Amino acid sequence: MLFDTLAIVGVGLLGGSVGLAAKARGLSRHVVGIGRTPANLNRAKELGILDSFTTNLAEGVSSADIIVVCSPVDLIAAHVLEAAKAAKPGALLTDVGSTKGNIVRDVEAKLPPGVDFVGAHPLAGSEKQGAEFARVDLFDGRMCVLTPTANTKPAAKERATLFWQTIGSQVRTLSPEEHDLALATTSHLPHYIAALLARQLPEAWRPFAATGFRDTTRIAAGDPHLWTAIASENTLAISHALDVFAGQLETLREAVLNQNTAELGRLLTEAKRVRDALGS
Amino acid sequence: MLFDTLAIVGVGLLGGSVGLAAKARGLSRHVVGIGRTPANLNRAKELGILDSFTTNLAEGVSSADIIVVCSPVDLIAAHVLEAAKAAKPGALLTDVGSTKGNIVRDVEAKLPPGVDFVGAHPLAGSEKQGAEFARVDLFDGRMCVLTPTANTKPAAKERATLFWQTIGSQVRTLSPEEHDLALATTSHLPHYIAALLARQLPEAWRPFAATGFRDTTRIAAGDPHLWTAIASENTLAISHALDVFAGQLETLREAVLNQNTAELGRLLTEAKRVRDALGS
Repeated sequence: MLFDTLAIVGVGLLGGSVGLAAKARGLSRHVVGIGRTPANLNRAKELGILDSFTTNLAEGVSSADIIVVCSPVDLIAAHVLEAAKAAKPGALLTDVGSTKGNIVRDVEAKLPPGVDFVGAHPLAGSEKQGAEFARVDLFDGRMCVLTPTANTKPAAKERATLFWQTIGSQVRTLSPEEHDLALATTSHLPHYIAALLARQLPEAWRPFAATGFRDTTRIAAGDPHLWTAIASENTLAISHALDVFAGQLETLREAVLNQNTAELGRLLTEAKRVRDALGS
Repeated sequence: MLFDTLAIVGVGLLGGSVGLAAKARGLSRHVVGIGRTPANLNRAKELGILDSFTTNLAEGVSSADIIVVCSPVDLIAAHVLEAAKAAKPGALLTDVGSTKGNIVRDVEAKLPPGVDFVGAHPLAGSEKQGAEFARVDLFDGRMCVLTPTANTKPAAKERATLFWQTIGSQVRTLSPEEHDLALATTSHLPHYIAALLARQLPEAWRPFAATGFRDTTRIAAGDPHLWTAIASENTLAISHALDVFAGQLETLREAVLNQNTAELGRLLTEAKRVRDALGS
């Protein structure tokens, strides 16, 4: 067992999938879940995600060797710090937040001695929410970005890497700032753009929304609270990505309006080249 | 046999799927394909799509009871008129064009007497191109929009409805102008927006483009020539849809930059409501 006891703070889709994968891979002997709602935690236990649960964070994490904080992104730093205070010496803390700069800065400013924190963002998830949708293979082959800093002990980084790899992830490392800049374009921007597309569809035209519209707007079904919080946590990088997009949109509008087929063909060919390179 | 001989002008993904579905449903005894490239047509014959083929349009359509024009959208009107001149009396012509206003107007202005044309747009397809990707079930359960006008004979509309229904489509009727307005938002806008998103991804950040980015940009792999032609055929409606989108984008940018979580939450909640209503 790499980590005898695993504590999961926030047992939703991501937290639940961490629990399932950890048990399936023999990573931990005991998985304890911490949340607000006993009924939800009990359901997660029935689903085989947890061995035990509590609504008391300090109590839940006290015997854990690794603590994974899967709370809403705007609560992660506070929950990591709360857990760190109650954790036993040598415990490792990590998280699943979609933004990293604010979280890592807030945590490192107040992290008590004797425990370690390595920020993480597994690029896995879904527009679905809740432990009911947890999957043992959610992280299989998916990237998990770790965001250690100059303050991170090499041994802590190694243990965090081993944890995320063991539950299926391919680990890459970025600084928290690089992470937030890259993800603003690769994850946050598409979400807001998909939402605007969905919002522009009048009810009368819904029957004419086929596969293309559905694929392009699928992520707009995501949790509005999550994506509002992400915008607050990564405001500058997202604003910049939106500015770049607005500039592109203006170029495209002019090409369409002026029937500038050479320019429009150039834009669409560049886009196809990028998309083809990504694969299916 | 509803239509003893079916002629398909342009045997790619859509034309090939028309052929496969027509044969599978016993719609026609003989399917003839017309195209530019004998090798491609021969391959379509090997795939069971065609019974015979020719590169001579007039010759190919001369014995057909129904002629389906699946050429690139900017060539459809010309090919329909060329086919109409060579068609036998009573023949029905239809098409698969993604825009309808220009095509229907150009065709109706010059359609010879004795044959009928009913514009059609099956909302089926893929970012893939070519008869190799043709599927017998491509139209199953998918909507096909027919765009008859005051000049369309009721009997021709009925026969076109029967044709598209028999190969699997659910038929709905709009005027060509209504079609172009609705599809500018439900189909054309998402394509251009997806292309801009794809184009904004730098090569260094490709590893961080996960499922959300991939879903949202999938259609950006479509044929640049097709989507350049669509923009030329439906310029005003697409420009209008882009204007509305640009206005939405500005509202969103301000909400993000000002950390106006109430406004951002409102936008995202509206978007989620629309997307949830569409289903998966």
